[in-house]
Amino acid sequence: MQSLVLGEEFIWPGMVLLTRTGRKIVVCESADAGNIRDIGFFDVYAYEESLEEVFLDVLAEIDPETIAVNYSRSDSTADGLSHGLYLELKNYLDGTEYEKTLTEATAVIGDVRGAKSSTELDRIQEAVDSAQEFLKELHHSWQPSWTEADVATFIHDRIDQRGLETAWDQAMCPIVTAGAEADHGHAKPGSRTLPAGEVLRLDFGVSYGGYCSDMQRLYYHPKQGETAPPASLQSAFDDVRAAINAGFDALEPGVIGHEVDAAAREVITGRGWPEFKHGLGHQVGRRVHDGGTYLGPTWERYGEAPYREVSRNEVYTIELGIETEWGYLAQEEMVRVTESGATYLTEPQRELNLLPVE
Amino acid sequence: MQSLVLGEEFIWPGMVLLTRTGRKIVVCESADAGNIRDIGFFDVYAYEESLEEVFLDVLAEIDPETIAVNYSRSDSTADGLSHGLYLELKNYLDGTEYEKTLTEATAVIGDVRGAKSSTELDRIQEAVDSAQEFLKELHHSWQPSWTEADVATFIHDRIDQRGLETAWDQAMCPIVTAGAEADHGHAKPGSRTLPAGEVLRLDFGVSYGGYCSDMQRLYYHPKQGETAPPASLQSAFDDVRAAINAGFDALEPGVIGHEVDAAAREVITGRGWPEFKHGLGHQVGRRVHDGGTYLGPTWERYGEAPYREVSRNEVYTIELGIETEWGYLAQEEMVRVTESGATYLTEPQRELNLLPVE
Repeated sequence: MQSLVLGEEFIWPGMVLLTRTGRKIVVCESADAGNIRDIGFFDVYAYEESLEEVFLDVLAEIDPETIAVNYSRSDSTADGLSHGLYLELKNYLDGTEYEKTLTEATAVIGDVRGAKSSTELDRIQEAVDSAQEFLKELHHSWQPSWTEADVATFIHDRIDQRGLETAWDQAMCPIVTAGAEADHGHAKPGSRTLPAGEVLRLDFGVSYGGYCSDMQRLYYHPKQGETAPPASLQSAFDDVRAAINAGFDALEPGVIGHEVDAAAREVITGRGWPEFKHGLGHQVGRRVHDGGTYLGPTWERYGEAPYREVSRNEVYTIELGIETEWGYLAQEEMVRVTESGATYLTEPQRELNLLPVE
Repeated sequence: MQSLVLGEEFIWPGMVLLTRTGRKIVVCESADAGNIRDIGFFDVYAYEESLEEVFLDVLAEIDPETIAVNYSRSDSTADGLSHGLYLELKNYLDGTEYEKTLTEATAVIGDVRGAKSSTELDRIQEAVDSAQEFLKELHHSWQPSWTEADVATFIHDRIDQRGLETAWDQAMCPIVTAGAEADHGHAKPGSRTLPAGEVLRLDFGVSYGGYCSDMQRLYYHPKQGETAPPASLQSAFDDVRAAINAGFDALEPGVIGHEVDAAAREVITGRGWPEFKHGLGHQVGRRVHDGGTYLGPTWERYGEAPYREVSRNEVYTIELGIETEWGYLAQEEMVRVTESGATYLTEPQRELNLLPVE
């Protein structure tokens, strides 16, 4: 078990307790204690035969009014406790005065993970910049003979050379789909090449210093003699762009997640397209889909997350797509929430990139 | 989320349902569906707005009597469901005829993970053999000037050359402790060297094809002119060996976990040493501490695991140590349970290895 606050592994079950008064306590097995003590940040209480006994002693010392635990129904990044360990904890508290004090720590964890420190923002920006650099190199190096898998390999080589990591499972990062016939979604790059007159899509991010980037980019392979995308492709691209702009404009401290989603959704349906089948934007941080407030519609699957308030220094994607005759046309940017509204961390894709042809 | 049975990642919440009649069903988000379908092994039901709706439809089709869920109070390897997702599941079932049918799948998962197939046994044997090979190379290459960290680096280089991985967090695998003054436990290798007349301890394993090995070895640095360890060190080593042999002899199908632990514990206390502060042996598999039956004492911290029956083709460590004037002297072997009793997967350490001196 490796926890967000600890940064070290437990071999055996252990607990991290943070109190209102600022105490930082770890209860762990005696063989795990040395490493935790070495961090120099925690009061360490080691157990040998019984975690329960040591925990209850510590609890009596702290005497808390409520115990907020790292589980959450609506935020997977605040949902770190297994159900088995929750039952163990519950069992430890049975018959004590604390048995009714357990509650979920969703709000606290959402706040801590949501609002990024300047160090966190620097790392995210570096992850954005690196990803954009690799995409630019791809744009210039691309060859018509390249398959989706070749495109992914090009990106992976650049990541390896720089000692970085992909922001999610490398087998699907980047997601590369070539042409109208390709599936979209979370698919692995395959043996498809990109015919002239078709669109190449990348969904991609890197991880830098434990923080992620996430963006989608569109490239057009011009036919012989073409110097611009076909008008109807350009117009579809512009519709997506307009919806992203509407989401961007709606994003500011205090707005509710689903209101931002609705602003973009209205533009896309207003221009005659069907609704996109996901939320407009998720937070980005240590995970590429980081938790807390979600810029999504009020669908069952998103739980409480779209009902939360946006706060300063949160980092979101703004992303959506439409099904067209060129396949799925999606764009995805990353933004930070400032006092006065959103600001781009990515260089937004304002035009369809034309791929080089001989 | 990546599951044992799936081997693929979900980006959004999803479920794997295995029925008594052999149906294999996945419920997942529409963008995740393509990859799961590509496995060619599952009936895939995709959701867009509501996981709940699709799940309840599938459930009505299966109409199960009980729903065993991957959580467990006593087996961390069967405890994969977060408490937040458990609450979601519970909420989905509220008001349906299935709301009282949830139970824990500990026994099923323990059986599946415990009894190893021949492929699994081959991989574990390969992980054992590789680790032993590296330890032999270390034995011959060791220099008196080497720090604990140098020893770890030597092992890591060999692992990298072979394209393998450590069985647990590389920062603590191997655990290397030099001499009587070193802490034992799960500590990181430091700047300590090994003076003549002292003992070097390694706790080490590698992962091969997703399966682990785990063993501890002891090395003695002879003083000028010494050709054997001091008699009292040899005698302490023999006491540990005798206790391991007793555990080995007690291990067979049908025996209860804590009975095996007790067999070794009695030998060690019978020879005048204090009890070791952990269980005699854990299972080894995909994780180095794999779940299910545990060869441990009936202490609170081990829950139900020491009360379970040992079965054929389970793989265990047998390990224990004593505090001596040379520091902590521990040995750890790996065994497989056969019809007729235990058989070693490791070449057991029957003698204290003497390190080379000029």
